[in-house]
Amino acid sequence: MTSRIESGEAAAGAHAHPLAPRPDGATLLKRLNRIEGQVRGIGKMIADDRYCIDVLTQVSAVQAALDAVALQLLEHHLHGCVQHAVKSGRGDHAIDEAMVVIRKFAR
Amino acid sequence: MTSRIESGEAAAGAHAHPLAPRPDGATLLKRLNRIEGQVRGIGKMIADDRYCIDVLTQVSAVQAALDAVALQLLEHHLHGCVQHAVKSGRGDHAIDEAMVVIRKFAR
Amino acid sequence: MTSRIESGEAAAGAHAHPLAPRPDGATLLKRLNRIEGQVRGIGKMIADDRYCIDVLTQVSAVQAALDAVALQLLEHHLHGCVQHAVKSGRGDHAIDEAMVVIRKFAR
Amino acid sequence: MTSRIESGEAAAGAHAHPLAPRPDGATLLKRLNRIEGQVRGIGKMIADDRYCIDVLTQVSAVQAALDAVALQLLEHHLHGCVQHAVKSGRGDHAIDEAMVVIRKFAR
Repeated sequence: MTSRIESGEAAAGAHAHPLAPRPDGATLLKRLNRIEGQVRGIGKMIADDRYCIDVLTQVSAVQAALDAVALQLLEHHLHGCVQHAVKSGRGDHAIDEAMVVIRKFAR
Repeated sequence: MTSRIESGEAAAGAHAHPLAPRPDGATLLKRLNRIEGQVRGIGKMIADDRYCIDVLTQVSAVQAALDAVALQLLEHHLHGCVQHAVKSGRGDHAIDEAMVVIRKFAR
Repeated sequence: MTSRIESGEAAAGAHAHPLAPRPDGATLLKRLNRIEGQVRGIGKMIADDRYCIDVLTQVSAVQAALDAVALQLLEHHLHGCVQHAVKSGRGDHAIDEAMVVIRKFAR
Repeated sequence: MTSRIESGEAAAGAHAHPLAPRPDGATLLKRLNRIEGQVRGIGKMIADDRYCIDVLTQVSAVQAALDAVALQLLEHHLHGCVQHAVKSGRGDHAIDEAMVVIRKFAR
């Protein structure tokens, strides 16, 4: 099997997560479901013409929840896929790939 | 009528937006609907155990979309509610309130 | 005297800060001096080839200190210049100008 | 020699940067010197009571310059120290340590 790190592109199928099973898959999904509901709630606040400051406060809460999800995913990715890639001699590529997303989340 | 700025708390009803009707209410709602769909898509990616980097890239796209919504809401709020509050002698309170959310979005 | 908000450009001279004297000018200067020293310290850490994580921790401390300065300046600006501009009928311009810098500091 | 990753604390001496010499040490130092000068310039702008928006624009430029330094240091650290740690069986510790600083720079 060619892992996605090797192929360097996104495949549609399942991802092996060498060395570390993705922890908290169910927890992550529960979080995402909650975030989806929060976003729907913001839409409703806008439809109801609610006070801007209250809407902004909710948007900020969703951002914080997404930040937490992103950091959890990144941590898992570094411990699992990147460590595995390093041990397989493909570390530089995996790190370059991780830096691309770290830059997106950096200020 | 007691505006929410005067009362300093979030009421459940409609918000008058003195001086400036909220522009793009329909556009904002459409954006929020799209963001809700994106969040649902991220949940599906996690359920399908998709490659972490691809999931993170999607999370980052949602964050950027929420940032845009937040800045549009803030701009509207400053032009409308805050200007109105300043002209009504309640500017300091409205600005303090705006700073609270600006701090949440600042890096 | 033409204020900088009216002229819409940066003049080299002193700035009147209508309605609100810039509070804590001395405090701000003291903070900036401390930040300047911290940046010098980071340069020294790099020259001494100090451990990356320690250097990064210091960079992050400087960023936090600059964030605090920026938010203090912005708060002062909104309470002073922007309120004055609104009362003088030039509020929309002053708010557009403030939004440009808020966007720079937003995530 | 006990590396700083092993000891988990900041030592005062030079840092070996296993596997990868810190690239651009001179470039980084030049950048830091420029940033130090920019911070000094901001202090002067405040002393001269320059227009808040102009000061904020300069603060934002310094933040962007520090972000670039931080990302360059982090990238170097991941390619060098972290890869080396992974190959030496100390990867989990090195990644936990890197996540601490990544969290500081994340939004």
